[in-house]
Formats: sequence, structure tokens, C-alpha cells
Amino acid sequence: MKEKLDFYLRRFTTLEDDRRAAILKELTVRPYEKGTLLVRQGERTSACYFVLAGCLRQYAVDEEGHEHTSGFYTEDQAAAGFKRYGVDEGSPWSLVCVEDCTLVVGDLAAEREMFDKHSQLESMVRRMVEEYLGRVQREFAAFACATPEQRYRTLLRERPGLAERVPQHQLASYLGMTPESLSRIKKRTILT
Amino acid sequence: MKEKLDFYLRRFTTLEDDRRAAILKELTVRPYEKGTLLVRQGERTSACYFVLAGCLRQYAVDEEGHEHTSGFYTEDQAAAGFKRYGVDEGSPWSLVCVEDCTLVVGDLAAEREMFDKHSQLESMVRRMVEEYLGRVQREFAAFACATPEQRYRTLLRERPGLAERVPQHQLASYLGMTPESLSRIKKRTILT
Repeated sequence: MKEKLDFYLRRFTTLEDDRRAAILKELTVRPYEKGTLLVRQGERTSACYFVLAGCLRQYAVDEEGHEHTSGFYTEDQAAAGFKRYGVDEGSPWSLVCVEDCTLVVGDLAAEREMFDKHSQLESMVRRMVEEYLGRVQREFAAFACATPEQRYRTLLRERPGLAERVPQHQLASYLGMTPESLSRIKKRTILT
Repeated sequence: MKEKLDFYLRRFTTLEDDRRAAILKELTVRPYEKGTLLVRQGERTSACYFVLAGCLRQYAVDEEGHEHTSGFYTEDQAAAGFKRYGVDEGSPWSLVCVEDCTLVVGDLAAEREMFDKHSQLESMVRRMVEEYLGRVQREFAAFACATPEQRYRTLLRERPGLAERVPQHQLASYLGMTPESLSRIKKRTILT
């Protein structure tokens, strides 16, 4: 699994083979079973995860007890409660494994030490975070001005395979619609 | 206006006074008149902006000619089309001054040079981008699971003053509702 990480190191840095190997050795890669709760809503955590295989779901329960799915993270995506510096607040959401997963487990609190040791790493993380931000910005803008049906079509196009990997009521919640609406839209999409 | 930037440099770096002064000297701060189009949808640009005073609006026109407002940037917020490395695509949205503005104008393509000269700057930008990403993630998650009325109340709480600064039809578009719905919700909010 670490060859994927090596791909990122090669793409974003000019580190020599032995330096890359040293970094890979320091990273923690762990398997998690389907259903594992990685982060609990309200919990203070500095953990972050990078998905090598599997699927994570991000969700929150509102004041009235309703659950809302706000993200699915699959291969090559990072999930973290990026926090405000100096503000000590709990995670706004929970993070759970929808499938058996293999994850890189990081600790945002310990990153300074890693960056001091391997200076090119910080540059790599900055560029990855900027890419990630660009994606979230584009998804947000697209979500806000799309109808539920357009959102479903965008999901099929932008994240092929995801719709088959997650429970349909969670997918409906993520798309901002009821499971019944999703079912109707799926039937229409097959016909057209 | 540059004292605000100095505040950020002090907060996120341990640079000496003369180093901070040298960085501030290199930054471009410019006034822009209300109505100025900074970025046109579809245009390839590496410009980025940091708002010292004023308000920017981010919007896109869809295939059917409908305009959708997807963001407002006010004091201390950054607006940029953070792009994917190696992908040369046009901006997914336009960026326009809703008020007279004072902006720091940056160029993502030229940042490498700045970072090489002032190494702590890259660390600062990384932390600011992570904070920004955290905010976008939280806003997206909150938007996706809120009703239009809840979105309006969140906006009043999280971004005080914004509702009075921008045209109401653009605010309605940003909140994902019609101007008529916004008007009804505002009346109800005053009464309760």
C-alpha cells in the first residue's frame, strides 16, 4: 500500500530515494474494519486520515436528532477536521468506515516535527491541501446551485462507483434528498 | 492597511521586524471600485486576492443562463480559484467587487519565488489554507443539511453585517432560495 504514498512523494517533491523511504517508514498505515468509528462528533481530535483503500462517511446529528451525511472519502482522499489554530473546539462531525479500510493515520499536532525533519514535506502538504480546497470549493459551488437530480448526475460523473458502494439512504442524505426521491431519480436516469 | 497583514505575519511566523517589513514591501495592495470584474468565468488565471476592506462576490452562470452566487468574501478572507496542479482549466466562477475594495493581489504562479526567499511564508500560507479549508468544509456540511431558514439564521450569526451589505437577490441566490422566500423569512425572523 505504501507505493501509493511514494507516488505522491515523487509527484510533489524532489526527494531522493532514501529520504522518501525514511518518510514512508515513519508513516502509520493501518487496516480498519467496516463500521469502525474513527472520530465521534464533539470529540477533540487532531487525527487525520488518508484513504488508501475503502470508504469513510462523514456525518452529523442535528439538535432534533436527524442524521446528515456530509461527505464520503474514498481512495486518495484525505479526511480531517481541519481546525482553526488556537481554537479548541470539538469535531463538527463523526467519521466512520463504510467498508473495510486501509488508512494512513496522521496527527496534525505532530506534523511540525515531521516538517522540521523533512522540509519538502510541508511544501507537499501545502499543495495537496490547496488542491483539496479547490475541490471542496468547486463541489460546494456546484452543490449550492444544482437541483437534487443534477447533483446525482454530477456524482455519477465525478465519483464513478461511489453510488454502488454506500447505503442508499446515506447517499440520499448526502445529495440533500429523501431516499424515495433518489429512487425515482435513479429510475429516470436509467431510462434516459 | 498593511498593519493587518503584519498581524498575520506576527501570528503565523517568528520573523524579525526587518524580514516582515521586507515581505510587506513586496506585496501589492490596490483599491478597486465597486463593480470591478476581477476574474471572468472560464478565464485562465493564477491571481488570488485577500480582502483588506470591502466585499467580493463569487458567481457562475449555468448552461441555461441562470446566475448563481456561491460566495461572498469580506475582510480577512481570501478568494482564489485554487487549481489542480498540472490541470489547466478556466475559473469555474466570476469574481466581482460588490463594494469599493482594498485588496492584496497575489499571483499563485509567482508564489514559489516568494517562498524560496522567505521560507517561513510557505508555512504561514499552509496554515492559513488549512484554516480556510476547515471553514469551507464546515460551511458546506452545514449548508447541505440546513433548511433555507436555518441557512439564513446561520448567516446572521456567523457573518454579522453581511446581509445588509449585499443586494438581496444575490443573498437569496447564495442561500439557495428565491428573493420572495428570503423576504418572508426575514419578516418571520424579526417577529420571533
